[in-house]
Amino acid sequence: MHYKLALIGFGNVARALARLLIRKQDLLKSQYDVTFSFTGISTGSHGFAVNPNGLDIQKALELVESGQSIFPLSSFNVKNSLDVINHSSADVMFENSPVNTQTGQPALDHIRTALNLNMHAITANKGPVVHGYRELTALAKSKGKRFGFESTVLGGAPVFSLYREAFPLAELTSIKGIFNATTNVILTLMENGEAYDDAVKYAQSIGLAETDPTNDVDGWDAAIKVAALVTVLMDTPMTPQQVNPTGIRGITPEMIAKAKAEGKRYKLVCSAEKVGDKVEASVSPQLVDSTSPLYGMMNSSTGITFRTDVILDYSISLSEKPGMKGGPVETAYGLFADFVNAVK
Amino acid sequence: MHYKLALIGFGNVARALARLLIRKQDLLKSQYDVTFSFTGISTGSHGFAVNPNGLDIQKALELVESGQSIFPLSSFNVKNSLDVINHSSADVMFENSPVNTQTGQPALDHIRTALNLNMHAITANKGPVVHGYRELTALAKSKGKRFGFESTVLGGAPVFSLYREAFPLAELTSIKGIFNATTNVILTLMENGEAYDDAVKYAQSIGLAETDPTNDVDGWDAAIKVAALVTVLMDTPMTPQQVNPTGIRGITPEMIAKAKAEGKRYKLVCSAEKVGDKVEASVSPQLVDSTSPLYGMMNSSTGITFRTDVILDYSISLSEKPGMKGGPVETAYGLFADFVNAVK
Repeated sequence: MHYKLALIGFGNVARALARLLIRKQDLLKSQYDVTFSFTGISTGSHGFAVNPNGLDIQKALELVESGQSIFPLSSFNVKNSLDVINHSSADVMFENSPVNTQTGQPALDHIRTALNLNMHAITANKGPVVHGYRELTALAKSKGKRFGFESTVLGGAPVFSLYREAFPLAELTSIKGIFNATTNVILTLMENGEAYDDAVKYAQSIGLAETDPTNDVDGWDAAIKVAALVTVLMDTPMTPQQVNPTGIRGITPEMIAKAKAEGKRYKLVCSAEKVGDKVEASVSPQLVDSTSPLYGMMNSSTGITFRTDVILDYSISLSEKPGMKGGPVETAYGLFADFVNAVK
Repeated sequence: MHYKLALIGFGNVARALARLLIRKQDLLKSQYDVTFSFTGISTGSHGFAVNPNGLDIQKALELVESGQSIFPLSSFNVKNSLDVINHSSADVMFENSPVNTQTGQPALDHIRTALNLNMHAITANKGPVVHGYRELTALAKSKGKRFGFESTVLGGAPVFSLYREAFPLAELTSIKGIFNATTNVILTLMENGEAYDDAVKYAQSIGLAETDPTNDVDGWDAAIKVAALVTVLMDTPMTPQQVNPTGIRGITPEMIAKAKAEGKRYKLVCSAEKVGDKVEASVSPQLVDSTSPLYGMMNSSTGITFRTDVILDYSISLSEKPGMKGGPVETAYGLFADFVNAVK
C-alpha cells in the first residue's frame, strides 16, 4: 500500500520526520508493505509546493536549509497551507504549524480540511487537541481515519497510546508529572548554583527555550499539556486558562539552597485529579523529596505518573543526558508512530 | 460475545483475577459487548472442577478460602489440570501454576494443550515465556489465538504491550531496571539501619518474600525476568542460567552506610544490551546516584528503562507506598488486560 504524505509546517520537527521516514523506509516496506511519497509541503517562510506524483524531498530539505523557497518544486500554483492540503491528493497530513494556545488555529482548520478529504491527520500541535479533541475525533471516526497527536505531550515518547493500549478498562484517577523540559533545566542549573538569568540563557543556547521564555517559565506550556491530557484521558474538556499555572519566576536561589540542605528539590509539578464529577488541575513549583518519582528527573527529563483503580502509580519518564537534546527527533518519532499505527 | 474461562491455578493472583473480572463485568459488557462465565478451575490443593454450563465462582472462592475442595461443584470427574483444560470447553485459559525456572513445566504443557484446543492462553508465569516463547507464539498465531504474558515482569504493569504498541519499528538497544521488589524492600530497610535478617523477615511478613527467600535474594527471580524480556523484546532466546545473577547477600551495612554518605544507593540492577549480534545480560548489585531513574525507586517499587534508536531512555516504573502491596491485584490486572486485548 502506497501513502501520499503532506507536511503542513516544515520546521525542525517536520524535517526530522522526513529524515526518519526515509531512514525507516525499508523497515516499513518489509514489516508492513507500506511505501510513501511526499506530495505536499507547506513552510512558514520558504513557500509552498505540491506535486501529486511526488516531490523531491531531499531537494526540499536542501532548499529550506539553505534559506531558499521550495516553490520551484511545485506542479501547482499553491499559495497557502489549505491550498497544499487541497491539491496534494495526500492520504496522510502531518500538521506542525506553530501552537496557538488561545484558539488552536490555524491547526484546527488544517486538520478539519484533511479529515474531510479522507486523510489521516497527525499533529505535534497541542492547540487542536485542547480546542478540538471531541470534534476532530468524531470527524476522524466518521471518515474511518485517525486523528493522531502522540507527540504533543512528552516530546514523542508514548503517553496516549500507552494509556489506550496498555490500560484497557482501567479508571484513571490522577496524573502528576513534570511536562516542561526548559523549566526543569533551569531548576537543575539553579540547584548547581547558577543564577536564573544565566540558566535561561543556557536553555536558549541549546535550542530548548525560545527568545521570549514566557511560555515555558510562566507555566503555559505545562498548562496546555495538562489540559490536553485531561481533555483526552479524563474525557473532560479543559483549557490552559482553567489550569491557571504558576511558573518558576518566584523561586529564589535561597529557596533552592534551603531545599537542597533538606534533601529536597523544587520541580514545576503538573497535576490533575478526579474529584467527584470534576477534575482539579494545577501547574506550580513544589518541593519533592527523594521518595518521589519526580525527584530523579534532572535536566531536560520529563515524566508522568498515572494512578488508576487497578495499578497504583505507574510512571513513565523520558531521561535526557546533560547537553543532549533529542527534541526534534523524538517528537518526530511520535508522529512516525502515529503514522505506523494508522496504516499498519 | 460470550467467553468461557478456565482458571488453571487458583492462588492469590487467580482469585484476584476472578474478583476483578466480576468487578469489571458491566464495563466489559457496555464497552465491548463481552460476557463471560467460569467453566473450569484447577487448584493446587483444593481439587478440580469443570462445568461447561458455568461454575458458581463465588462458591468456589468461598470453598478455597475456607480450606475446602471445589470438587462438589464439578459436573465431570476431573483429576488434574489437563483434565480441566480438556473438559472445560473454555475459550480462554488463564495459567497460574507455580513457576519452574528450569523447565517451564507444567505451564508449558497447559498452554500447548489450551492453544491446540483453540483457546487464548494467558499466563502470569515466567517459565513458559523463557522456555517456550517462540514455539507458543507460533502455535498461537497458527490458531488465530493469543499467547499473553503481560503480567510476568513488572507485576501486571504494562511492559510488553507498551513496547509492542507504543514503539512501532523502534530498535531496542538496551534495557535496564529493578525487577525484584523483595530485594528492593530489603535494601531500602537496610539503608534505614535495619539488619539484613530483620529486613528479610519484614519482607516475608508482608507476603512479598517466600519462606525460602533464595529465589529473590540470590537474583534468580530478577534473572528469569531479564531472560523473558530479552527473549521477547530482543528476539534472542535466553535462560536465567545464562544471565548468571549475583544477589544481594554480599551487601553489608558498612557498604550501604558508605554509599549513603556519598549520596548513592545500592540497587539490584538488571540489564541487557545488544552488542553486535549478541545480547549481554546481567543481574548484580550496583551503586546508583540521584541522577539515575533507579535512585528514586524505593520499597517495593520496580521499573525498567528502554533505550532505542529513536527515543533515548524511556523509563516506566511502578511505585508502591511503604506497607502497601498491590501485588495480586496488579498482577491480576495484567492477566485481565491480556484478556481484554485478546477479545476486544
